[in-house]
Amino acid sequence: MIVSINTLTQERYIIPEDLDDSKNINEFLLSNKGKKVIVVQGLGFVGAVMSLVCANAVAKDYAVIGIDLPSKDTYWKIKSINEGVFPLIANDPKIEEFFENTKNKGNFLATYDPLAYSYADVVIVDVNLDVQKKSYTSHMLKDFDVNLGGFKSAIATIGKNCKEDVMVLVETTVPPGSCANVVKPILEEELLKRGLSIKEYILGHSYERVMPGPEYIESIRSFPRVYSGIDARSAGDIETFLKTIIDTEACELTRLENTNATEMAKVLENSYRAMNIAFAVEWSRFAEEAGVNLYEIVNAIRVRKTHANLMYPGIGVGGYCLTKDPLLASWARKSFFGSESDLNMSVNSVSVNDQMPIYAFNRLIEVFGDLVDKSVSFLGVSYRGDIGDTRFTPVEVLVNKVREAGAVIKLHDPFVSYWQEQGCSVESELDVVICSEPELVIISTGHSEYRKSETISKLMNLKPTNIFDTIGLFSKKQLLMLQGRHKVSVLGRGDIH
Amino acid sequence: MIVSINTLTQERYIIPEDLDDSKNINEFLLSNKGKKVIVVQGLGFVGAVMSLVCANAVAKDYAVIGIDLPSKDTYWKIKSINEGVFPLIANDPKIEEFFENTKNKGNFLATYDPLAYSYADVVIVDVNLDVQKKSYTSHMLKDFDVNLGGFKSAIATIGKNCKEDVMVLVETTVPPGSCANVVKPILEEELLKRGLSIKEYILGHSYERVMPGPEYIESIRSFPRVYSGIDARSAGDIETFLKTIIDTEACELTRLENTNATEMAKVLENSYRAMNIAFAVEWSRFAEEAGVNLYEIVNAIRVRKTHANLMYPGIGVGGYCLTKDPLLASWARKSFFGSESDLNMSVNSVSVNDQMPIYAFNRLIEVFGDLVDKSVSFLGVSYRGDIGDTRFTPVEVLVNKVREAGAVIKLHDPFVSYWQEQGCSVESELDVVICSEPELVIISTGHSEYRKSETISKLMNLKPTNIFDTIGLFSKKQLLMLQGRHKVSVLGRGDIH
Repeated sequence: MIVSINTLTQERYIIPEDLDDSKNINEFLLSNKGKKVIVVQGLGFVGAVMSLVCANAVAKDYAVIGIDLPSKDTYWKIKSINEGVFPLIANDPKIEEFFENTKNKGNFLATYDPLAYSYADVVIVDVNLDVQKKSYTSHMLKDFDVNLGGFKSAIATIGKNCKEDVMVLVETTVPPGSCANVVKPILEEELLKRGLSIKEYILGHSYERVMPGPEYIESIRSFPRVYSGIDARSAGDIETFLKTIIDTEACELTRLENTNATEMAKVLENSYRAMNIAFAVEWSRFAEEAGVNLYEIVNAIRVRKTHANLMYPGIGVGGYCLTKDPLLASWARKSFFGSESDLNMSVNSVSVNDQMPIYAFNRLIEVFGDLVDKSVSFLGVSYRGDIGDTRFTPVEVLVNKVREAGAVIKLHDPFVSYWQEQGCSVESELDVVICSEPELVIISTGHSEYRKSETISKLMNLKPTNIFDTIGLFSKKQLLMLQGRHKVSVLGRGDIH
Repeated sequence: MIVSINTLTQERYIIPEDLDDSKNINEFLLSNKGKKVIVVQGLGFVGAVMSLVCANAVAKDYAVIGIDLPSKDTYWKIKSINEGVFPLIANDPKIEEFFENTKNKGNFLATYDPLAYSYADVVIVDVNLDVQKKSYTSHMLKDFDVNLGGFKSAIATIGKNCKEDVMVLVETTVPPGSCANVVKPILEEELLKRGLSIKEYILGHSYERVMPGPEYIESIRSFPRVYSGIDARSAGDIETFLKTIIDTEACELTRLENTNATEMAKVLENSYRAMNIAFAVEWSRFAEEAGVNLYEIVNAIRVRKTHANLMYPGIGVGGYCLTKDPLLASWARKSFFGSESDLNMSVNSVSVNDQMPIYAFNRLIEVFGDLVDKSVSFLGVSYRGDIGDTRFTPVEVLVNKVREAGAVIKLHDPFVSYWQEQGCSVESELDVVICSEPELVIISTGHSEYRKSETISKLMNLKPTNIFDTIGLFSKKQLLMLQGRHKVSVLGRGDIH
């Protein structure tokens, strides 16, 4: 008996052994007769919201089925959607609005039964594709691997069930070359096994630029998008389809020459960002050593248009994309295109970023001394401000280091009540976390709540204590005020410590 | 007898053994009585133009003396200025206009006699500070050194001659920490030796963001600028001075906390740019391997504000700054601040960029085959479009490789008539270079002349030949046209070769 725990409510669901969900699927299709059917494969941070966008498409009324595996981590999402509760917290009111619409229209179902694929006119692939980081040599990433197993089996499941004229649109971030070298052969193999034609299906790649947060929906629906097809016919059909889903009045839709190109664009985009962050890491250490304020320097440089993307110091990179996409790219270069070279700058960026919370810990000890038996409160556990996503959050590494150093820790986050990766609950009332007069407060996520004057007042009301700001959250004025009462250090600022 | 050759006219000057230029200096000061005297130390690509900016200051009438060593490479510039010919070619009409003004006003003199410092109210330091790149291990920069000898002796010369209340404004790009750790002690030592006070002088650092080209003057005069002083009094006086020189109506003037901070800002700025270019190098190779067009991908990504600085493929980095500034930074981190860490991302960027013309050569051979006895014409030798600067131009490495491969080469550049580093003349008439029907034309610099329809017509009139575009110079339309007649390959485009 396997149980799946709802990370929002901590409710427990027993996963059924029988995968037959045909009754629900057939009822759903009956009440959505005449509509084209979109199956979204994967109900994660992209797939779940992409399902809402499809069920609220700009130019067509679709019946949308979200499908995921009935596993420990995902089964509760299927249940939650069908019980009328959207399975993620985000401060974008459109998510609730769009979800309510689907309930009123009855055009969104979640399931785990692969039967759904057999009715799909379009399958949108939003499954995960992970990288296994194996070893570090003196802090640098030495070895990593990409296991395509799960991805291949997801594609095979489509091929085993789909119609021969299905449209498969891959949105998953894949190693460049995957549509041509992996998806196409698997789909065709499965279609041929079933005696079906391999001339009819449509295959393409298009990536979202989803940004969980207050613009979650619009970051999928109204943000410039790149797409490609496995051939000209596919590219044309994908374009026609995307124009029914995405608001192309509000954003550009750019066709690239082939699937290699769009797949490369996605990982290049994220590698670039990862590298920009890694650059800030290196210079943060230098700024601390030289006793200068890197924030002021970055501000002075960002006035140049050519340097407007320069990043500020911080605790590190988290989330699902920047922590692995550069590795997918480098892996593909060698595995699919026979190169002998890594993408060194991109791989090194991941290495540097992975070390960021360790640097933060070292600086903490340097400035505030040892932590044995100290009470430490973390403000924020998610990897980014105003979202509730803890995947690969750098805060986790810092929390572990601080705990190992002998501190007694408390965690606060307004967007995370249960921290799946750590298997612990997280306090959502700030008072509960700071009323006990912690000996050290660590600002670890840039939630806007922490910038509010109420929060500053609460911090000012504490007995003189230590504050370690890992992300440069406070304004100049707020910082001056806090410094008047507490010992404050900001990562990347060598001028105060 | 040492001779200095004018790189513009190839005129030869014999360098005098007697350094006494007091007659000229005294006459100049007599006719500029009552004016504050600015001495600009160094008449290179920054100092020469900075002198013009000072002699045409926005809010004050200064007497400006440009000073440089009477050496092989620089003596001719002193002569040229005093003979009424500005010693560099650039397509900024303001250079000629500003130079004419100084001739009319008689407020700009060039000299080699250190006597000039004794009259200076302000000395602006614009001397070179070089990095010695020592060895590469499998293409990566293994060892380099910073020799402060020349810089220290330039500062000592000021200290040996200056008034005790002189203002010294360092503009040279220095290893962060240099004003505090090098300039200040040397100046004070020399002042004390002469029995003068060390309480009166003013010392600060401010860097220009000069961009040789059509906005040469304005890039110094109307571009945001950062400054700092060795203490609060110095910072205030430097600010007051800069406001008389720079157009602060048109651009921000930002004070940073100390000289470490502004020195760091400068090298950070250039390291960031060097890294962005290195990133494009890595992905250009990948794009070529995967058969896709990196230009299209970059265009598709640059629509995102967070990615607007993403660079295009190219032949490489040249010029005096990006090829060494990241190394200055890394050197300073260890030498002045005791860190055990290099700035790895920054140092690696220089390594990668240094290899760019070698990659270009390898791609050339891959696409066009061997070069033995082939006639090859290079369009452009300077490191950047529409300027005549050949310092560390990547074209030099490519020219050497192509020559070593057995080709017979011709060089064209509208802005360079004599290539100092190669000791050869460069043709400025395009017809002369391409009328001989070269077997390969290499587009090596992005001069606007090459984009003009006349040039495209000339190329179209050649017998079918090979064109290797290392910088993505041509528009889509031009490229299509050229491809109709010639075999064309563009670096970073795997889709055509």
